[in-house]
Amino acid sequence: MRVGLDVGGTKTDALAVDDDSRIVARVRRPTGWGPDAVAQGVLEAVRALAGEGVDLASVRSVGVGIPGQVDSATGRVVHAVNLGVDDLDLPGAVEDELGVPIAVENDVKAAAFGAYALRGRRDGAAIRSMAYLNLGTGIAAGIVSDGILWRGARGAAGEVGHISVDPNGPLCRCGQRGCIEALAGGGAVAERWARRGELPVRDIFDAAETGDPSARQLRAGLARGVAAGVRVLVLTADVDIVVLGGGVTGLGDRLMRDVERELQASAEASAFMRSLRLSERVELLPPGSPAAALGAALIGAAGDARHDTEEALVHG
Amino acid sequence: MRVGLDVGGTKTDALAVDDDSRIVARVRRPTGWGPDAVAQGVLEAVRALAGEGVDLASVRSVGVGIPGQVDSATGRVVHAVNLGVDDLDLPGAVEDELGVPIAVENDVKAAAFGAYALRGRRDGAAIRSMAYLNLGTGIAAGIVSDGILWRGARGAAGEVGHISVDPNGPLCRCGQRGCIEALAGGGAVAERWARRGELPVRDIFDAAETGDPSARQLRAGLARGVAAGVRVLVLTADVDIVVLGGGVTGLGDRLMRDVERELQASAEASAFMRSLRLSERVELLPPGSPAAALGAALIGAAGDARHDTEEALVHG
Repeated sequence: MRVGLDVGGTKTDALAVDDDSRIVARVRRPTGWGPDAVAQGVLEAVRALAGEGVDLASVRSVGVGIPGQVDSATGRVVHAVNLGVDDLDLPGAVEDELGVPIAVENDVKAAAFGAYALRGRRDGAAIRSMAYLNLGTGIAAGIVSDGILWRGARGAAGEVGHISVDPNGPLCRCGQRGCIEALAGGGAVAERWARRGELPVRDIFDAAETGDPSARQLRAGLARGVAAGVRVLVLTADVDIVVLGGGVTGLGDRLMRDVERELQASAEASAFMRSLRLSERVELLPPGSPAAALGAALIGAAGDARHDTEEALVHG
Repeated sequence: MRVGLDVGGTKTDALAVDDDSRIVARVRRPTGWGPDAVAQGVLEAVRALAGEGVDLASVRSVGVGIPGQVDSATGRVVHAVNLGVDDLDLPGAVEDELGVPIAVENDVKAAAFGAYALRGRRDGAAIRSMAYLNLGTGIAAGIVSDGILWRGARGAAGEVGHISVDPNGPLCRCGQRGCIEALAGGGAVAERWARRGELPVRDIFDAAETGDPSARQLRAGLARGVAAGVRVLVLTADVDIVVLGGGVTGLGDRLMRDVERELQASAEASAFMRSLRLSERVELLPPGSPAAALGAALIGAAGDARHDTEEALVHG
């Protein structure tokens, strides 16, 4: 049995998979604030699986996906600002108590790995490579090819959110103009909308449909940003497909139609873009898919296997 | 002994490497026009190495880098427009005559593989991953990581030239606006300059220094385009370094200074970009480096080794 956790800003998803990587149990718990509470939350989420019928003695590894910079070799987490964590040695904090190896990975990279596994199961026709483009408060991607998670030299592969695609575009919180994240990040878009609401991106889509000019502009920018992210990922990494996930994809088909329209527009302008058939290569992660927690479980299992066999499934 | 060829639009570079991948002979010959002349030129270039002391009987493989779309599994070349080749089964045309396995690869990908090998030798401190950004008539890149050439799902990984980074930028021959290639491709820049000359990009740099406004604008766009290519490659693939090569890099330090200034500007605007230290991660391929021919030789050797050992050094 392998356990995977997705430590989010407000809640932690925990699940257990059997030796065939099938999900056998799943719980959700609130996430604490600050390094001690986050570490404690990890312990409690693992223990909560016992209440779902998981024999904790049979758990051989725990993988944790967490929103921050992660040194995947050591499991050290830095700058997890949404969790109040500046620096946390997560394995050091929980490994003794849990008694099994702990693997830690950035949450988007974990979700990419999990989405790849889910995609493989859902569709008989195998894909070899996939990018997972996470549309949340910020924007980042993870790339998986032939079962290998692409981390890059500094663990920063897939940070497409801060690629500028318009020198006259909106100012990004990073300081540049026209970043993909400034156009399509849920946080940036909500900030420019500036009307209070539970689901600002949904409000923007609704208002755009009633003709509100500011909402129409924000909605068009969002589609432009997502389409640019898809183009960057396909043109640079030439992945078979790009899977969209994250909070903003709660808009479902409304978002997809906008993104497809953007991709169609560049295909109409350019025979080269047309040849890439981008709109056929974009998919939504099915709602409720536990991609990050599943990916974390599989990364934990792979890390454990690596210790055993010296084979690196997750590419450093 | 392994032979590698770089079949360019006007000339073909051929070299032979020994079992330690050291270059032991090198010749240059004109390239023919059309599929028959290209195939014949490949045969003649290999034979010309005999005049440089290479015992052709000891050659175990021939690798060919060629500017076109290549199916690296079969060696079929399509759309090599600069060579007058629409469709050519190059192994079929020359393998019987040469009597050794022929590997064919896109020239920029071959150059990336060769530049990675050259870089490893030049500098003691090992790099794990590298992008080679080719600044020629067009713009494309190749990505190598841990000795693996990244080809992607359709052999199109690294096609960053047609990523748009400015919706109001110049029209690209591909039909989009503001593509990296429209800003920084030697062909696109020369076309917009529209004054005849042997070395239009050099003329533009010279004219910009005397204050010519059109030249200054083109020169600034070129640096912007190259810097955008570097950012895309580092942010998406997180390569250790980006090596610039191709005809436009004949400008040497003049080009590098412009590109570094662009990268510095984004580093000044953005703490995130600053943390990437991009200007320290860009290098010029040393002038005269036979990167593509060497890469082709190594790819040929790897393909041959793969047949022997079932190990894939070049990632499909």
